[in-house]
Amino acid sequence: MNEKHVKGNSIPFQATKIKPKSPVPSDIDIAQAATLKPISQVARELGLLDDEVEYYGPAMAKVRLDVLERLKDVPDGKYIDVTAITPTPLGEGKTTTTIGLSQALSAHLGYNVMTCIRQPSQGPTFGIKGGAAGGGYSQVVPMENFNLHMTGDMHAITAANNLLAAAIDARIFHESTQTDEQLFHRFCPPDKHGNRVFGLGMQGRLRKLGLQYTDPCDLSIAERRQMFRLDIDPEKVLWRRVVDTNDRYLRGVTIGKGAAERGISRKTAFDITPASEIMAILALTTSLADMRKRLGKIVVAISRKGVPITAEDIGVAGALTVLLVDAIKPTLMQTLEGTPVFVHAGPFANIAHGNSSIVADQIGLKLSDYVITESGFGADMGMEKFFNIKCRTSGLVPNVVVLVATVRALKMHGGGPRVSAGKPLDQVYAQENLKLLEKGIRNLMHHVQTVRKFGIPVVVAINSFITDTQAELDLIKKCAIGDCCADDAVVSRHWELGGEGAIELAKAVVKAANKPSKFDYLYPLDISIKEKIDTIAREVYGADGVDFSPQAEERIEEYTRLGYDKLPICMAKTHLSISHDPNLKGVPHGYRIPINSLRVSVGAGFVYPLLGTMSTMPGLPTRPAFFDIDIDLDNGNILGLS
Amino acid sequence: MNEKHVKGNSIPFQATKIKPKSPVPSDIDIAQAATLKPISQVARELGLLDDEVEYYGPAMAKVRLDVLERLKDVPDGKYIDVTAITPTPLGEGKTTTTIGLSQALSAHLGYNVMTCIRQPSQGPTFGIKGGAAGGGYSQVVPMENFNLHMTGDMHAITAANNLLAAAIDARIFHESTQTDEQLFHRFCPPDKHGNRVFGLGMQGRLRKLGLQYTDPCDLSIAERRQMFRLDIDPEKVLWRRVVDTNDRYLRGVTIGKGAAERGISRKTAFDITPASEIMAILALTTSLADMRKRLGKIVVAISRKGVPITAEDIGVAGALTVLLVDAIKPTLMQTLEGTPVFVHAGPFANIAHGNSSIVADQIGLKLSDYVITESGFGADMGMEKFFNIKCRTSGLVPNVVVLVATVRALKMHGGGPRVSAGKPLDQVYAQENLKLLEKGIRNLMHHVQTVRKFGIPVVVAINSFITDTQAELDLIKKCAIGDCCADDAVVSRHWELGGEGAIELAKAVVKAANKPSKFDYLYPLDISIKEKIDTIAREVYGADGVDFSPQAEERIEEYTRLGYDKLPICMAKTHLSISHDPNLKGVPHGYRIPINSLRVSVGAGFVYPLLGTMSTMPGLPTRPAFFDIDIDLDNGNILGLS
Repeated sequence: MNEKHVKGNSIPFQATKIKPKSPVPSDIDIAQAATLKPISQVARELGLLDDEVEYYGPAMAKVRLDVLERLKDVPDGKYIDVTAITPTPLGEGKTTTTIGLSQALSAHLGYNVMTCIRQPSQGPTFGIKGGAAGGGYSQVVPMENFNLHMTGDMHAITAANNLLAAAIDARIFHESTQTDEQLFHRFCPPDKHGNRVFGLGMQGRLRKLGLQYTDPCDLSIAERRQMFRLDIDPEKVLWRRVVDTNDRYLRGVTIGKGAAERGISRKTAFDITPASEIMAILALTTSLADMRKRLGKIVVAISRKGVPITAEDIGVAGALTVLLVDAIKPTLMQTLEGTPVFVHAGPFANIAHGNSSIVADQIGLKLSDYVITESGFGADMGMEKFFNIKCRTSGLVPNVVVLVATVRALKMHGGGPRVSAGKPLDQVYAQENLKLLEKGIRNLMHHVQTVRKFGIPVVVAINSFITDTQAELDLIKKCAIGDCCADDAVVSRHWELGGEGAIELAKAVVKAANKPSKFDYLYPLDISIKEKIDTIAREVYGADGVDFSPQAEERIEEYTRLGYDKLPICMAKTHLSISHDPNLKGVPHGYRIPINSLRVSVGAGFVYPLLGTMSTMPGLPTRPAFFDIDIDLDNGNILGLS
Repeated sequence: MNEKHVKGNSIPFQATKIKPKSPVPSDIDIAQAATLKPISQVARELGLLDDEVEYYGPAMAKVRLDVLERLKDVPDGKYIDVTAITPTPLGEGKTTTTIGLSQALSAHLGYNVMTCIRQPSQGPTFGIKGGAAGGGYSQVVPMENFNLHMTGDMHAITAANNLLAAAIDARIFHESTQTDEQLFHRFCPPDKHGNRVFGLGMQGRLRKLGLQYTDPCDLSIAERRQMFRLDIDPEKVLWRRVVDTNDRYLRGVTIGKGAAERGISRKTAFDITPASEIMAILALTTSLADMRKRLGKIVVAISRKGVPITAEDIGVAGALTVLLVDAIKPTLMQTLEGTPVFVHAGPFANIAHGNSSIVADQIGLKLSDYVITESGFGADMGMEKFFNIKCRTSGLVPNVVVLVATVRALKMHGGGPRVSAGKPLDQVYAQENLKLLEKGIRNLMHHVQTVRKFGIPVVVAINSFITDTQAELDLIKKCAIGDCCADDAVVSRHWELGGEGAIELAKAVVKAANKPSKFDYLYPLDISIKEKIDTIAREVYGADGVDFSPQAEERIEEYTRLGYDKLPICMAKTHLSISHDPNLKGVPHGYRIPINSLRVSVGAGFVYPLLGTMSTMPGLPTRPAFFDIDIDLDNGNILGLS
């Protein structure tokens, strides 16, 4: 315990004392009343050196990746993933549990702990869901920074994504208005002395085409055409623009309607920033050089001859990397009890892999005894991808899974009425109902068994709500340990009490983490795309099999021809059911998974089959959260964030 | 001299020594070889207190506006505006002169100096113009931070602008699909206990409508409709979305083409972020409370009944303010010689007022003997707006104008061949040609006379290029002092030599600053819109008069009815000519100014007449600057920024 501290240049960890009130005040009231340590103290407590840390105001800092080189011989700490049963649309408190567990382990049990979570999108913050800094007495602070711009990573991704998009359309436009010879003269104009040179951004395409010239004039007529005419099929531009706002009117747009664009318009769409492949890349990259390579590999379009065109071909991959040199560094913040938190990357958990960054976890594992990280949505979604994609990419080996369950969600899985965001909950969720609950526990059992298939211990965290009865909590606990065969099941009251409320959970996690782990991926990479999808459908979703549409068959053939069949699979699926159908609650049986189509993120490194329509741009409701948000002009405090 | 230092809590200023090389290396090579002081030292040298400064990495900091309250009784320093003759499309080195002059005044003559400049857009950085950190040995460093994300202000403006846009379209959509009663229930839903409340964001509209209820149920049927149905005319949405990228395909777009939007599509456009009214507001605001008010006053659309609908009516002005609480604080950086620089706001200089922020200047004037600030484009553009809009809004009184002239631009005004960005310069610009030059000096003379009309001393800074001959420089100097009646004219070699090269210029500026200033605005606010426009057209542009189109007449009538006629005028005009026609070089005579239409920025506080078509979204050329930009993976250095 605390053994890592002596290795660094560190000062002893000091927990921040909290005094939970009852009833629990609003999230923002708790957060604004918090005592924060200077983030420089948090960094020193971790043993970080001064030149490894870059401060962003008094409460946030970015940590340079150099630290990984300095600590490369330090053994990794234990690696814990927090996941959940199939959630209601309200979420079941996974982030809150992640933070509460960390506070318990660190501030109350004395371990060195790093919490690693995702950066939220501004879309939900101003839309319907609110922020994502945890809740009650288990929060990351300052929640204003966390929920707004943080250190600018999300904005950097938006900027890089949209520079790439602008570069693609401008290239199509200029190619359409110029001859091969004109293109050559524009791309390699003579300088004052009449010399022509290739730009840095042209080196990648030269290599790809096997052209070894250093003087552009040596290119033959045919090679000039090959080099500078990408001949993108405007109908096959795959790259979309993004904004980090819930803007439903951008779900479908026609661009190029300005007079100067001469009628070269086309239909496209905007996604919300977390859906950008660049976000998935940031989360999966392991170094600056690796990120540069992945950005270059992004397939942005298909040429009229059927050749994939990459960001490297467009010549912009270097500039994209330059836009992300700060974003690759994780942001250090703290919990209400002063324990360290890395906030880094936030890819969508349905069309992408829904996990925070590998580099944050890697640094955390060097600095701490325990890294507690969270994967998006239920165990069938974020956790499956955590193992098969994120851990496979990093090579890191997880030790324990914490599976969050709530009385509310289990009642819903037992047949309780529909739960919707922004609408009042049915009374059944506020009163004891052991029958519904018992029926719903099947969902918990299914997910525990899924974890087991990866060879890892699983602790069920029953995230307690004030409306839960003791009999309800006891029932879950009994079934989780008995019928579900979880390693342990513990009621946790971290929302009400902070780390103090999660001490028992923390002890259970420590115990499980010391059990031998026999971790393995669910499928090897060298089987076919269809076999991989089939494995996930049967083993994780409990389906009887998979049906591929003709379009899906076509894509599989194409991806196999292009060598993308060696990538892992990232299922694009609803999170509201274990199956592909959000209406099927509990544990669906006797069904087959339809695959309508497939897409690929070559830069991020996964193939994603589409199981139904996934919205990648949320909308604003009639009364969005922004109606509650304002500034108190007397003291500059932000009001109404949640 | 240095007298302000003793007032603060400061340490003595230490200049950073530079050793200029010959020939002058590339901008990025000079910048990356620079020695930087920790920005904390720069802040302490200014006398800033620890809790007035928020660090963003080792080389940037934001300064809190609280400092204005602490220093409210300290007298202001001298206020110097740097402007230029009518520039070529390449620019005449105004930023470089601003920085070189500051380095000379501070590092060489020992005055306390603050430089205040605009934050550049990423569009030009990756497009055709390159960055804007100055050049040669007169630069702001680190130029990578300056030209990329800086402290995130530009991104915050993009986010706020686009949240407002999404809110407008979502509102139109929801109103179109719901009855008045449904809207009431959605906007003020009952809570758990059955109580309804007005959101914070509804208070502004309640006040505007004169409704003093605290319980929504007290609203009559008619009042519910009035309160919650804005009835925006979709054809009259004035607010556009922005991206900070040169994306020509977004100049004209049709939005709402997604299936869920049920065919409620409309035509609109994206601007580049500096064109957002929110950027103009950031530059003109004087406090957080003032910014909150201005954001609420933005007119985003017109209702079907002809009523202006504001951001306050939409309920989002508080949230916009929250997105900008950090952006309102100026960012402190440094020059190559270690003198302090505020970088803050960057509104367009044609459709907006083209000046950096008032708050940065205000803080600078409290901390320094001299504030050197820059206004966009030529004296007919940024400087006229600096005086009539920016100084009028702040109440600050300028002391001297520095007017930058180059041999190159004056030759062009004398009839030299066309100068275009990205194309080689004609030989006439590299060889002595006194005839062309003498003819072109008329342009300089005109601008000097314009400055005189504001009652302020003017020093001509001849920004020397290596191709200039001594006879050319002498000719400008002679004419500037003799024919043009400038207070002084000095050749400056700050690009080659840093502050050392601008010492003579600095001495001339100090001398001029101690002359009595009889500053006055060119027009009072209480004359009519037409009279104001006419005054600028005659006095600044030398036109014979103004012709208003029927649409312009209509707008003037409407704006007068709405009370916007008391606002100052922000002419939206080309910067490439003193007139409205970019092809008219030198000093156009015997022409009239056509006003096609007018628009208004009620939040920023100006009416802007449109003199021709102004592009608010640049495009990418065939070979954009991003082809030169990449990362050196051996050391993490950024390559190719300029």
